[in-house]
Amino acid sequence: MWGGRFAGGPDEIMEAINASIGFDRRLAAQDIAGSRAHAAMLAAQGILTDKDAEAIREGLLTVLSEIQAGTFQFSTALEDIHMNVEARLIELIGDAGRRLHTGRSRNDQVATDFRLWVREQCDAAIEGIAALQKALIGQAETGADWVMPGFTHLQTAQPVTWGHHMLAYVEMFARDVSRFSDARARMNECPLGAAALAGTSFPIDRHATAKALGFDRPSANSLDAVSDRDFALDFLSAASICAMHLSRLAEELVIWSSAQFRFVAMSDRFSTGSSIMPQKKNPDAAELLRAKIGRIFGAQAALLMVMKGLPLAYSKDMQEDKEQVFDAADTLMLGLAAMTGMVSDMAANPEALRGAAGQGFSTATDLADWLVREAGLPFRDAHHVTGTLVAKAEAKGCDLPDLSLAEMQEVHGAITESVFDVLGVDNSVASRTSYGGTAPDNVRAQIATWKDRLG
Amino acid sequence: MWGGRFAGGPDEIMEAINASIGFDRRLAAQDIAGSRAHAAMLAAQGILTDKDAEAIREGLLTVLSEIQAGTFQFSTALEDIHMNVEARLIELIGDAGRRLHTGRSRNDQVATDFRLWVREQCDAAIEGIAALQKALIGQAETGADWVMPGFTHLQTAQPVTWGHHMLAYVEMFARDVSRFSDARARMNECPLGAAALAGTSFPIDRHATAKALGFDRPSANSLDAVSDRDFALDFLSAASICAMHLSRLAEELVIWSSAQFRFVAMSDRFSTGSSIMPQKKNPDAAELLRAKIGRIFGAQAALLMVMKGLPLAYSKDMQEDKEQVFDAADTLMLGLAAMTGMVSDMAANPEALRGAAGQGFSTATDLADWLVREAGLPFRDAHHVTGTLVAKAEAKGCDLPDLSLAEMQEVHGAITESVFDVLGVDNSVASRTSYGGTAPDNVRAQIATWKDRLG
Amino acid sequence: MWGGRFAGGPDEIMEAINASIGFDRRLAAQDIAGSRAHAAMLAAQGILTDKDAEAIREGLLTVLSEIQAGTFQFSTALEDIHMNVEARLIELIGDAGRRLHTGRSRNDQVATDFRLWVREQCDAAIEGIAALQKALIGQAETGADWVMPGFTHLQTAQPVTWGHHMLAYVEMFARDVSRFSDARARMNECPLGAAALAGTSFPIDRHATAKALGFDRPSANSLDAVSDRDFALDFLSAASICAMHLSRLAEELVIWSSAQFRFVAMSDRFSTGSSIMPQKKNPDAAELLRAKIGRIFGAQAALLMVMKGLPLAYSKDMQEDKEQVFDAADTLMLGLAAMTGMVSDMAANPEALRGAAGQGFSTATDLADWLVREAGLPFRDAHHVTGTLVAKAEAKGCDLPDLSLAEMQEVHGAITESVFDVLGVDNSVASRTSYGGTAPDNVRAQIATWKDRLG
Amino acid sequence: MWGGRFAGGPDEIMEAINASIGFDRRLAAQDIAGSRAHAAMLAAQGILTDKDAEAIREGLLTVLSEIQAGTFQFSTALEDIHMNVEARLIELIGDAGRRLHTGRSRNDQVATDFRLWVREQCDAAIEGIAALQKALIGQAETGADWVMPGFTHLQTAQPVTWGHHMLAYVEMFARDVSRFSDARARMNECPLGAAALAGTSFPIDRHATAKALGFDRPSANSLDAVSDRDFALDFLSAASICAMHLSRLAEELVIWSSAQFRFVAMSDRFSTGSSIMPQKKNPDAAELLRAKIGRIFGAQAALLMVMKGLPLAYSKDMQEDKEQVFDAADTLMLGLAAMTGMVSDMAANPEALRGAAGQGFSTATDLADWLVREAGLPFRDAHHVTGTLVAKAEAKGCDLPDLSLAEMQEVHGAITESVFDVLGVDNSVASRTSYGGTAPDNVRAQIATWKDRLG
Repeated sequence: MWGGRFAGGPDEIMEAINASIGFDRRLAAQDIAGSRAHAAMLAAQGILTDKDAEAIREGLLTVLSEIQAGTFQFSTALEDIHMNVEARLIELIGDAGRRLHTGRSRNDQVATDFRLWVREQCDAAIEGIAALQKALIGQAETGADWVMPGFTHLQTAQPVTWGHHMLAYVEMFARDVSRFSDARARMNECPLGAAALAGTSFPIDRHATAKALGFDRPSANSLDAVSDRDFALDFLSAASICAMHLSRLAEELVIWSSAQFRFVAMSDRFSTGSSIMPQKKNPDAAELLRAKIGRIFGAQAALLMVMKGLPLAYSKDMQEDKEQVFDAADTLMLGLAAMTGMVSDMAANPEALRGAAGQGFSTATDLADWLVREAGLPFRDAHHVTGTLVAKAEAKGCDLPDLSLAEMQEVHGAITESVFDVLGVDNSVASRTSYGGTAPDNVRAQIATWKDRLG
Repeated sequence: MWGGRFAGGPDEIMEAINASIGFDRRLAAQDIAGSRAHAAMLAAQGILTDKDAEAIREGLLTVLSEIQAGTFQFSTALEDIHMNVEARLIELIGDAGRRLHTGRSRNDQVATDFRLWVREQCDAAIEGIAALQKALIGQAETGADWVMPGFTHLQTAQPVTWGHHMLAYVEMFARDVSRFSDARARMNECPLGAAALAGTSFPIDRHATAKALGFDRPSANSLDAVSDRDFALDFLSAASICAMHLSRLAEELVIWSSAQFRFVAMSDRFSTGSSIMPQKKNPDAAELLRAKIGRIFGAQAALLMVMKGLPLAYSKDMQEDKEQVFDAADTLMLGLAAMTGMVSDMAANPEALRGAAGQGFSTATDLADWLVREAGLPFRDAHHVTGTLVAKAEAKGCDLPDLSLAEMQEVHGAITESVFDVLGVDNSVASRTSYGGTAPDNVRAQIATWKDRLG
Repeated sequence: MWGGRFAGGPDEIMEAINASIGFDRRLAAQDIAGSRAHAAMLAAQGILTDKDAEAIREGLLTVLSEIQAGTFQFSTALEDIHMNVEARLIELIGDAGRRLHTGRSRNDQVATDFRLWVREQCDAAIEGIAALQKALIGQAETGADWVMPGFTHLQTAQPVTWGHHMLAYVEMFARDVSRFSDARARMNECPLGAAALAGTSFPIDRHATAKALGFDRPSANSLDAVSDRDFALDFLSAASICAMHLSRLAEELVIWSSAQFRFVAMSDRFSTGSSIMPQKKNPDAAELLRAKIGRIFGAQAALLMVMKGLPLAYSKDMQEDKEQVFDAADTLMLGLAAMTGMVSDMAANPEALRGAAGQGFSTATDLADWLVREAGLPFRDAHHVTGTLVAKAEAKGCDLPDLSLAEMQEVHGAITESVFDVLGVDNSVASRTSYGGTAPDNVRAQIATWKDRLG
Repeated sequence: MWGGRFAGGPDEIMEAINASIGFDRRLAAQDIAGSRAHAAMLAAQGILTDKDAEAIREGLLTVLSEIQAGTFQFSTALEDIHMNVEARLIELIGDAGRRLHTGRSRNDQVATDFRLWVREQCDAAIEGIAALQKALIGQAETGADWVMPGFTHLQTAQPVTWGHHMLAYVEMFARDVSRFSDARARMNECPLGAAALAGTSFPIDRHATAKALGFDRPSANSLDAVSDRDFALDFLSAASICAMHLSRLAEELVIWSSAQFRFVAMSDRFSTGSSIMPQKKNPDAAELLRAKIGRIFGAQAALLMVMKGLPLAYSKDMQEDKEQVFDAADTLMLGLAAMTGMVSDMAANPEALRGAAGQGFSTATDLADWLVREAGLPFRDAHHVTGTLVAKAEAKGCDLPDLSLAEMQEVHGAITESVFDVLGVDNSVASRTSYGGTAPDNVRAQIATWKDRLG
């Protein structure tokens, strides 16, 4: 009748689709923190007696310790973490427990619990990113002046430095930090006391509970407080963009690890080997990280689709919010840690980097700039002259500095001996001293700035 | 150093990101079936002795029974289901076990296992949809001639029948069946024997293993066989579209259950109540089903993004395929079962349906059609005359049939008494006898056809 | 040979896939602003003569006026807006034009232009949202104390006020404003001067160009400056979440406009009619707005997928950024304007709202709260007593206030006459005075606060 | 008031959001074909006179020729292509034109038009893919026995042949053909005659119109016929998966074109150059193709989100279907043509392929297989012995065939001179003769099969 796996019939199906205790138990600590703040406030407002409040406080601590010890018996019949905790509390302390739910509802309770959880993840992401930034800065310091090819279209374009390349990612991840930080600030309003959706007639003090739970303020509209999950979407948006940055670095690590590039060697700890080819190191961790963006973006896509077109206030659809965010957060934190490990451990190969940096007439732009600067050519003309020189070198099968001054002067008479100063890769990177440019001194200054900022 | 949760350092991180045994153990039965087919073929080809093959067969059956009994010790150090099974086999039967992996690799092995698993899910989806179609047909039969409003823009447009509305979903789900059926046919090629990526020099018989595992044929290119996951994307695409259909029906059930519509009452079994408002029935299961499309589409988005831009052949990124498909399949099967239960149980309210059907001048089109058919007006003119009549009725605060013949004739002289035959909702639906139209006789004929098809 | 539409062969195909002038001409004003700032800085640094700089300035103004007048001849052969503008400049002013590209590249140029464009869209979104918020506040003011049902699961839960419901959206959109504001602040770094990817050896002053173009600072790493499009993703994330909020309000408008709800009537200006049913008003604009989130999220999904796994620095893949953002921005601005119009114009129906508010024992919670507050029952017990009373009323076919005091006292002896004070919908909403609650006085206070904030 | 761009007020806004003629004019030919079939059927059924039908037929042909000639005046006030065509028809032929809309509605009309359009795109995609397959087969033929590295994790794994690698994509694209073919078959039911949603009371012959328009049959349920857009989602799903395959090949072309790989040289026609580095060829077309999957998937995501949770029957939300499909179809067709051109034109570098194929002990598996086959070792033991030999070679800084027989026998006594036969890359690929394996003879057989199939 049910078309397959659910021989047990409707009760089994309804329980399977409806109960959330299988996953929302991860909110236990947040749920208990919220209840403690709520009970303390009820007592301060004279809605609960101090005695009841004290019983509740102690009861909740007992429940928490049972959960942390793994001795708590979760019940699917009690549906969710809120009812599981409350039922056990009543079992432990009786009538006082029955008074806890005064002036609140599961709607504001879950909104509060989940915000607390997501807020912690913002902090964890910021911490995880900082660790990764430090690892990147470590690499940048080691090779602040190692020349390597700067690519466009995966074709050699201009020489840059290893340090500069590492710092590019430090900048990206810094913006990711600011995303999590903005999301955290925006979500830091406390829904508790919005009750089912309309507020309550009890003289509760929402500012007190907000403060006790570390929120900046209570949310200003009770309907909004229980109806929206945009704070979770903010987290997922930030996580998706951060995962996009991770995927780009991961792609580079995979390509750089190939036999054709050999720019870096990944450590054994973040590679897998082959029992048959002992020399082989597969960059598995990098590949997995390249893939993880799919998972995080999938969570974002899922939750946005869930929320699309939902009328106010609470609809059960919103129960789909948690598993997506749990999985995305776990994936992101693991990904950050893995990338931190990979970057810390990896060994760049300065010779391979340098060898590749000089290929493909990568200092042609330097020559063009010389013609503008020293010979006064308009840029577009300098560009054209350079093209002719490169074609000449290519026809001769040599690199630009291998052309003689005479050969160069055949193309443009204003060229002098000093042109050779700009044609080497070291000269090239050293000359890029404009703010943000790849010159080693710039890179070292940026490293110093970052070390200050990251502490 | 690792920015948070992974105090244990790189080993813990790498294991957490790399090992798949936490989820791919769901492929145990498929993995063992594949190994049995492989061993039997190796023996038939003289690559294994019959004795070794027999030992392997028995060993694998033992492993399977251990897994089914829950006594199998899964090891994360052994990474995945393939190594776990093989290691235990060798433990059980010794050297013969070491010969099993001849002429294959984990790459073709996992591609085979996962295809077998997804293929089963196609079958399960088809079965689950058929059950839902039967439930819808049951509803259609009960109310084949119950009139209800057909909506456009959620505004009453024309009367239809309950049976017709139910059958609209039967059609949609029939196309979903054909999607899963097409996907199944397309994926039914056996990768086993593609080995790591290049095929093998052993004289294996891939047609034999393909046949033994129920595949239509072996895949024709070994690189392709281990590199693609489009079969999983086919499953996810079909599941997303099916979930879209489920979400539409779910939305209707939520709206129809509202106090304002009261078109249907959901059963207690698929609702949740309120301990404070015992009359209340929240259509939780419908809301959850409306949301589940997010989850399934999220899986599709995730896997497509993972696969984007991956060079051949196997990359570790592809390990991300399984959890997405597992979760989407579980969600879909549960959703189908829940919808089957809801539809079977729900009670439509024929009076409320009928009452709503006649509102809003819903038979205005019938009047326009009468003017074309009986009075010979061009359609666009008939349309205009009808508009004038509706405006007149609205001004009078009455419905169309409440206008007198004289009042009608003031608007157009060709109108006769027989116009009143088309103005009632029953007449309206009965007249829609064009193929596929809503007339009860059409609906009953379609029901009969569907009962034949579904058996 | 080309399988279809491209009879013309490779040149036609390559031009069709490669040229961006068909869409990036929308960046003309930004491109010219960037060039003006660049030229002025080059002159200030002594890299250009003042005379050349002045010729460039005048030439660029001419180009801009040609583009604005529609007389500019765009050339696909010149690929993009940058080359089109520069070529025309050279045509107009000769050699000086050839000097403009000194110390920059198309890579930093497009990154600058596009940031300027997206930054403007953030401002436009903020302005558009403010207009919508004002329209919502206007509605809130009109019906600050109109009672209506607060729904959970689209089932009547508790009475709220129209004003409160409108303000819930004001809160959501306020967070959207903060999203665009955060995105704007984060993207407000100037890539100009990053050149191709490595910076430049010319003594440019990036702080000057950044300041001239209204940026907070130049970007600190040249590789990062030309390689990332996270600022566009920030815009799209904010737009997706804002569109999600719009879709929710739109869904409510569609449901509320139905014959079954009749909570609001949309204006003719934002509805479409039917020539045959002149009374009919289809909420087309609301439906389109409900749908537009798909389009905006689609753009976000597209660009995130494009960026996934791209190695540094510029890859041509990134050319796909613009059309997605252009379309999403246009869609969002149009959607905000349409929603502003709909909300301004719509007429709520206070009688229908009030009638629905009292249905379904919507003040049961108030009764339970009375039992806690006045009779001292623990909440969970009060909850149970209320359930019994509701069941009694339902069995009698009446509403809660229709039960006699005696009937109530049969259920619980502590109930007194004063209970009737909390059972009406007006009493209910008036009592919800907790911060953020639905009480009309709260609503009026919030309206005053918002009017102050929005000016 | 409107927050920005829409100074003109509500009329401008509503027109901008509501009118579809800006894009649905692409359906003109389909709309006219549908109207012609409809009119002919009405005449055959005696609903129209032959004279009227003839006038309509001629009028429609005039309209079509005006549209094709670019002289047709499209009117936004007339909203969509259907009203534009009908209005012009009435202008041209008068009353007969007013009779055309008998027994149909815009709802079934647009469903029919759009299906016809999407059906054509399925055919075009199939044709475009066939052209690409032929180009791949051409490459395969040229290098059927060129050895190259088969990669896993972008690390050299085993030698394969160029032809085999090309044919892997032929297989993938063949499955894409079957996707479009399945989608086409599933969508090939005619909605015409479903009218607004309920069917009609006119004695129309839906089988006749279905046949005239090349449909397999009329759709069986009128509500379903006008309410679903799953056929468009089928197209988009197939297009997304096909684009995923294109993105993978594009990624390989980008990597293979790098200075580090030099496996292929793209033609000038599908590259862009640099005026400064004339030797440079950027694989722009490949990069754009790698990106285009984002756009196509974005369209799929958008439409699925639009359809999520829509109640039956027609809602205006569904107007969002067309632009997404138009853009995705254009993108796919262009992408297929561009890839066909790139593949046809590109020149593989057999020396570079061969040089890379032998690196990294890529024939270690062949050695292990020899030990199993010739020396009777269990596979896992052979694997272990091979690992030891590779480690020995690596320590010596040589490749496997450079070890002496004596050195090999130190590791395992059963090794004989004949082992050297399997250690070269040519021997390796030649030995992979299992069905689907990379042996050149296999490849040539597959090429022959494909040439037969593709004609």
